[in-house]
Amino acid sequence: MKKEVKKVVLAYSGGLDTSVILKWLQDEYNCEVVTFTADIGQGEEVEPARAKAISLGIKPENIYIEDLREEFVRDYVFPMFRANAIYEGEYLLGTSIARPLIAKRQAEIARITGADAVSHGATGKGNDQVRFEMGYLGQNSALTIIAPWREWDLNSREKLLAYAAEHGIKIEMSGKKSPYSMDANLLHISYEGGILEDPAAEPEESMWRWTVSPQNAPDEPEYIEIGYEKGDPVSLNGKALSPAVMLEQLNIIAGRHGIGRADIVENRFVGMKSRGCYETPGGTIMIKAHRAIESLTLDREEAHLKDELMPRYAKLIYNGFWFAPEREMLQAAIDKTQQNVRGTVRLKLYKGNVMVVGRSSDLSLFNPEYCTFEEDSVYDQKDAGGFIKLNALRFIIAGKARKNK
Amino acid sequence: MKKEVKKVVLAYSGGLDTSVILKWLQDEYNCEVVTFTADIGQGEEVEPARAKAISLGIKPENIYIEDLREEFVRDYVFPMFRANAIYEGEYLLGTSIARPLIAKRQAEIARITGADAVSHGATGKGNDQVRFEMGYLGQNSALTIIAPWREWDLNSREKLLAYAAEHGIKIEMSGKKSPYSMDANLLHISYEGGILEDPAAEPEESMWRWTVSPQNAPDEPEYIEIGYEKGDPVSLNGKALSPAVMLEQLNIIAGRHGIGRADIVENRFVGMKSRGCYETPGGTIMIKAHRAIESLTLDREEAHLKDELMPRYAKLIYNGFWFAPEREMLQAAIDKTQQNVRGTVRLKLYKGNVMVVGRSSDLSLFNPEYCTFEEDSVYDQKDAGGFIKLNALRFIIAGKARKNK
Amino acid sequence: MKKEVKKVVLAYSGGLDTSVILKWLQDEYNCEVVTFTADIGQGEEVEPARAKAISLGIKPENIYIEDLREEFVRDYVFPMFRANAIYEGEYLLGTSIARPLIAKRQAEIARITGADAVSHGATGKGNDQVRFEMGYLGQNSALTIIAPWREWDLNSREKLLAYAAEHGIKIEMSGKKSPYSMDANLLHISYEGGILEDPAAEPEESMWRWTVSPQNAPDEPEYIEIGYEKGDPVSLNGKALSPAVMLEQLNIIAGRHGIGRADIVENRFVGMKSRGCYETPGGTIMIKAHRAIESLTLDREEAHLKDELMPRYAKLIYNGFWFAPEREMLQAAIDKTQQNVRGTVRLKLYKGNVMVVGRSSDLSLFNPEYCTFEEDSVYDQKDAGGFIKLNALRFIIAGKARKNK
Amino acid sequence: MKKEVKKVVLAYSGGLDTSVILKWLQDEYNCEVVTFTADIGQGEEVEPARAKAISLGIKPENIYIEDLREEFVRDYVFPMFRANAIYEGEYLLGTSIARPLIAKRQAEIARITGADAVSHGATGKGNDQVRFEMGYLGQNSALTIIAPWREWDLNSREKLLAYAAEHGIKIEMSGKKSPYSMDANLLHISYEGGILEDPAAEPEESMWRWTVSPQNAPDEPEYIEIGYEKGDPVSLNGKALSPAVMLEQLNIIAGRHGIGRADIVENRFVGMKSRGCYETPGGTIMIKAHRAIESLTLDREEAHLKDELMPRYAKLIYNGFWFAPEREMLQAAIDKTQQNVRGTVRLKLYKGNVMVVGRSSDLSLFNPEYCTFEEDSVYDQKDAGGFIKLNALRFIIAGKARKNK
Repeated sequence: MKKEVKKVVLAYSGGLDTSVILKWLQDEYNCEVVTFTADIGQGEEVEPARAKAISLGIKPENIYIEDLREEFVRDYVFPMFRANAIYEGEYLLGTSIARPLIAKRQAEIARITGADAVSHGATGKGNDQVRFEMGYLGQNSALTIIAPWREWDLNSREKLLAYAAEHGIKIEMSGKKSPYSMDANLLHISYEGGILEDPAAEPEESMWRWTVSPQNAPDEPEYIEIGYEKGDPVSLNGKALSPAVMLEQLNIIAGRHGIGRADIVENRFVGMKSRGCYETPGGTIMIKAHRAIESLTLDREEAHLKDELMPRYAKLIYNGFWFAPEREMLQAAIDKTQQNVRGTVRLKLYKGNVMVVGRSSDLSLFNPEYCTFEEDSVYDQKDAGGFIKLNALRFIIAGKARKNK
Repeated sequence: MKKEVKKVVLAYSGGLDTSVILKWLQDEYNCEVVTFTADIGQGEEVEPARAKAISLGIKPENIYIEDLREEFVRDYVFPMFRANAIYEGEYLLGTSIARPLIAKRQAEIARITGADAVSHGATGKGNDQVRFEMGYLGQNSALTIIAPWREWDLNSREKLLAYAAEHGIKIEMSGKKSPYSMDANLLHISYEGGILEDPAAEPEESMWRWTVSPQNAPDEPEYIEIGYEKGDPVSLNGKALSPAVMLEQLNIIAGRHGIGRADIVENRFVGMKSRGCYETPGGTIMIKAHRAIESLTLDREEAHLKDELMPRYAKLIYNGFWFAPEREMLQAAIDKTQQNVRGTVRLKLYKGNVMVVGRSSDLSLFNPEYCTFEEDSVYDQKDAGGFIKLNALRFIIAGKARKNK
Repeated sequence: MKKEVKKVVLAYSGGLDTSVILKWLQDEYNCEVVTFTADIGQGEEVEPARAKAISLGIKPENIYIEDLREEFVRDYVFPMFRANAIYEGEYLLGTSIARPLIAKRQAEIARITGADAVSHGATGKGNDQVRFEMGYLGQNSALTIIAPWREWDLNSREKLLAYAAEHGIKIEMSGKKSPYSMDANLLHISYEGGILEDPAAEPEESMWRWTVSPQNAPDEPEYIEIGYEKGDPVSLNGKALSPAVMLEQLNIIAGRHGIGRADIVENRFVGMKSRGCYETPGGTIMIKAHRAIESLTLDREEAHLKDELMPRYAKLIYNGFWFAPEREMLQAAIDKTQQNVRGTVRLKLYKGNVMVVGRSSDLSLFNPEYCTFEEDSVYDQKDAGGFIKLNALRFIIAGKARKNK
Repeated sequence: MKKEVKKVVLAYSGGLDTSVILKWLQDEYNCEVVTFTADIGQGEEVEPARAKAISLGIKPENIYIEDLREEFVRDYVFPMFRANAIYEGEYLLGTSIARPLIAKRQAEIARITGADAVSHGATGKGNDQVRFEMGYLGQNSALTIIAPWREWDLNSREKLLAYAAEHGIKIEMSGKKSPYSMDANLLHISYEGGILEDPAAEPEESMWRWTVSPQNAPDEPEYIEIGYEKGDPVSLNGKALSPAVMLEQLNIIAGRHGIGRADIVENRFVGMKSRGCYETPGGTIMIKAHRAIESLTLDREEAHLKDELMPRYAKLIYNGFWFAPEREMLQAAIDKTQQNVRGTVRLKLYKGNVMVVGRSSDLSLFNPEYCTFEEDSVYDQKDAGGFIKLNALRFIIAGKARKNK
């Protein structure tokens, strides 16, 4: 028994899957469809989605195509990198961080257009359905959510193609279909399925799209310098760049040096393990550089507390809880630490390696005078004796109290 | 006013610093000195320390020279790697993990020889003094600790050399003195001081001793396979190896591929920041490989809890709390998770990169059937609807309750 | 479309709800029913459930009635109290901790009797359904679970009574029906519903069953002494008691002094807030006494780490994850700390108050010599200067480095 | 070898200890002394300190006497209570939270008066020396700190009295000297020493000063209502009160009902265990009431994250790290959660008991409709099936994967 729906906003890419969904929504729910196509740097033109939507009967005023790249990097990617967020030690959360933005904007468009429902093309076994739907409900809990992959029985590519053919949906077969399920945005591109379903198998070189192989990268290293303000990268080699342009540039540079590939088995929120390969070229530079500028400018205990909270923060983003109050609570703590995270990091890029080779800051807390074994102005070596003694006092007391027990 | 001491066990390397200390202890404390020299894989012969000690007047029965390499890797390095321990996101704790073992053995030798004091050559501004002394006091709180660097005024190399000359201590001047302060064991070699005191400066290539530069590494990648049992590496390319031999082999292999360099600014326990460079070739492979075998065999929440506890565990080791009950408490939790961490990881090594290219386990929790968007035997996609709904319920309720507030 | 089921093990109390479920299972699933009734100290006779089951057509060999009180306290309640577990600052987890045991035993009986399904009487909005079903699936993932409250439409007391009347289920109407939904076991009794649905309303005195009101408690305080071994209470006023008898005795004593009432609004795992009142008389004494014996015998950092992990541990139990590996991982850490938690605690009970008035232990780490401001044998007051100085060093350095910034 | 000091600001109470210190500073350091006496609600007149100081030769312009009660409660006590901070499960941090304020103001007066040193009367084995000195150094790292108790040899009351007599310091011997070492401020009064050095001994009733015994409290309960805004108490029984007046009032009310006594063994930062008794009457009401208003208005995961961070936050305050960036980082997270913590809590006070008997809020997230087992507008009971299934999926998969292993 389907819920009554008058108007639905669909996250629409213009590709096979979401075109089939578009048609299916019209047929099954007999409702008006609003399409929303966002440019978040996935590397494909978004304008073609307009003609596609019109050809499927969408009214021009119901077609929303927007460039969200700057917002994406400024308000989602950068805050996340302030936390040095990595999921399960390896994954830079490229897909996870993009979903909340799309969901939020989709809910806003629902409000603007008076729609009572939203829909997405994420499948029923993945994390993305959760991320989309948590995003919708976090914005407007009254929205009806339609997740076609959990409702219909078109559970294979063949059935989708048959449905498309049957309903007059034109699909460009541009060359061979990739054997992988992919997702891309300005932060990363991901691969799942195909040969990756065997975790013992190495993916073929041809799978990777954004980076050359380290073996095919230049024989000469390249040096770059990133400038930071309040924990965010603001300049590259001395030139101020907007957030999205910064990430675009880093992607290009890192990509040509074979930087940013990851091949992992991860734990999905919905309960199973899955194999994924990721290219996050610019992000891989950013996480290394951010830690380096923090190493000069963060207080030790701030840094350690950040490290302890990070896995939980990363998990919240992975699981789709970007708009949850506990994520905002952690963000408040993280952002508090970034006020003095300012300066410049120099990096050497070479065949897959990102090497920090220099960092400097006018707010640096490093002073070589204090490290050498010679005398200095603030540190009296005799103090170390008392420091150690009192740190060890509980062991000394326990040793005495329980000597013969 | 010095404490009265009858017999002291000195951690003795045979080099300039500890030879001066030996003499100084005899002179200042007018006490018998027992020397303890351990082979923990620092890559220097330990037997020469015997003749050196004898030449300084140590009685043969007071000279202890021991090979602790297997104990070091089996009981210290491996347990630590079960935790995926990394300090401040970068440092694999190579120096930190060796000090407790030396301290423990030194305290045991004090008991055996009836000594009432122990002494070490760590300076008054570093972490090692803490690690040594926490180790001593954790074993025997009644020991008197002599830390010459905090007592004497020989606070420069020149003064040490003068003291040596004056007291007839022979120093082999084997070539040029390194500008760096170094520490080595089977897990790593570290560099501090010299040009590294400028965090904006890249160290010269000649500093590094255990690894070639990625640029000078072979143009051909090498594949290796590591077998795991209960979270520890037990075989390399199908051949069973003891812990120390495993790490030695991995050091050689990784070293020739330019793997395992780190260049960081870190926060010392005693309060200041310091710049350090580290080579941890085998360890860098081990941490990557261990995470890979865990990715197949650990339960998700076990893995996440381990990740959250890890920074604290690493900090305990860094700060010298290996023998503290809170470290043992965390170890109990970590070890509990490793019972099923078994299987094989395949790695590709190439010019500084360690790439996981395959993992397999008879205890694997990965099953491709559950990941694909098709139907399977355990997962009903409709369940995801309820799952998301109840996860979002608190947002839905808050949205309704506070709509107009 | 119902799943085919041959034989189902039902958690059966003999009351209205589970008797209706019994009948409903027979009718709807047309399957053999095995009843399982456990005595976990709920304070009602369990034997009458046998005649009741027989009257509903259950074969004698399909009726399981067991006394699980000792196992409950020894293997569930005591381990939980080692952690000082409290949910949301107030709730001692009385209901939460009993469900896993019942679920585990139910799954075992399913194996013994060759049943392919299990069923329980928990409703579809509460936490207990989760706790039961997580327990079943943690034991045997192949079991079919039947949760009648989520399937049928008998969603009111009236409908249940009508169903009972219609199907010849005899219900003893012993006096007036309580307006509260209750659950009891040796650890506690809980109340929900009725007037409690208004969080601004105070429950009437007549609701409480196990404790007198503090106002009606004796005017004279009572002193008791509890002996501990490895973190568990083993003797009361010098007399050794088994776990269940210990808790029974403490319930009686605490109950007469008005100890152990709680009135809270809590957050359910399934997403909403609910109001609950609880009586946990013996448990309220135990949590106070356990902390007191720990205060003498635990190392400081062990104690603090336990405190930091506790809320997560409590949440796992509340949410039904008793058999999850992450709970076992935390338990391993907690149990590791309890080896030396031994001694005696003296308590004063008076009109709702539990006051610790004495603690002693042969393993005590307390020594008054170290606390007074006078000299002692282990602590040199001058050490405090160095201790403070190095703890403050990062502030001193930051102050200097950023003075004019 | 003493440091040269020109002018020192002394935390001065006017009592024996600090009067002796005042004289000793003049004699030993031959420096000008500025006295600072703060009213933080310790319950003693502060003005008499003026005449006392003058009699000891302090210039009138060097005498600072200030009423800090409102600042103390508003900027220190209330922020701490937002966190529900309790140290080691029992201690409400009454002494710990007052020291940073005094230290901060003392450092400010040093700046104003051009003093180069500060001094306090805390002993060398306690926590307070750390709290004072961390506070000084966090404000101005250039200050010289003089801690007489760690320098002189007046380590007994007899020697102090002799010194006073010898130097013409008049001491009023008002009745018998208390056998306890005490500290008081608006939040609490503490007792150490004397009979308390035996942790098995119950303190005599006469020790307690701010509360009657529960046994002597009125036989009739008293009901009060506290209003909250942004997590802070702002009104009592409908009447708006300033922070300090609020706490004063609560102290009086709670004190007459025997509320707020604690008797514990705690772990000091400097390494030993110590016994302390505390009266925190108003604070004991506040912590209970704050949790109650949070129970209605906080999101579940916010609340749980707060609970997990609390022990660390409490430890920071206990250890003297109020001005540390990691405390500020945690405060930012905590304060973020308090925006909607608004409403009214009704409490019943009776012979030592604080019972929450009602809470209400226009921002309440509680809705009885969602809790009952009947149908409601947001919760579909069938969703629970999917929710449980996916939460248990990892157990199901593990069960299948490892069935025969």
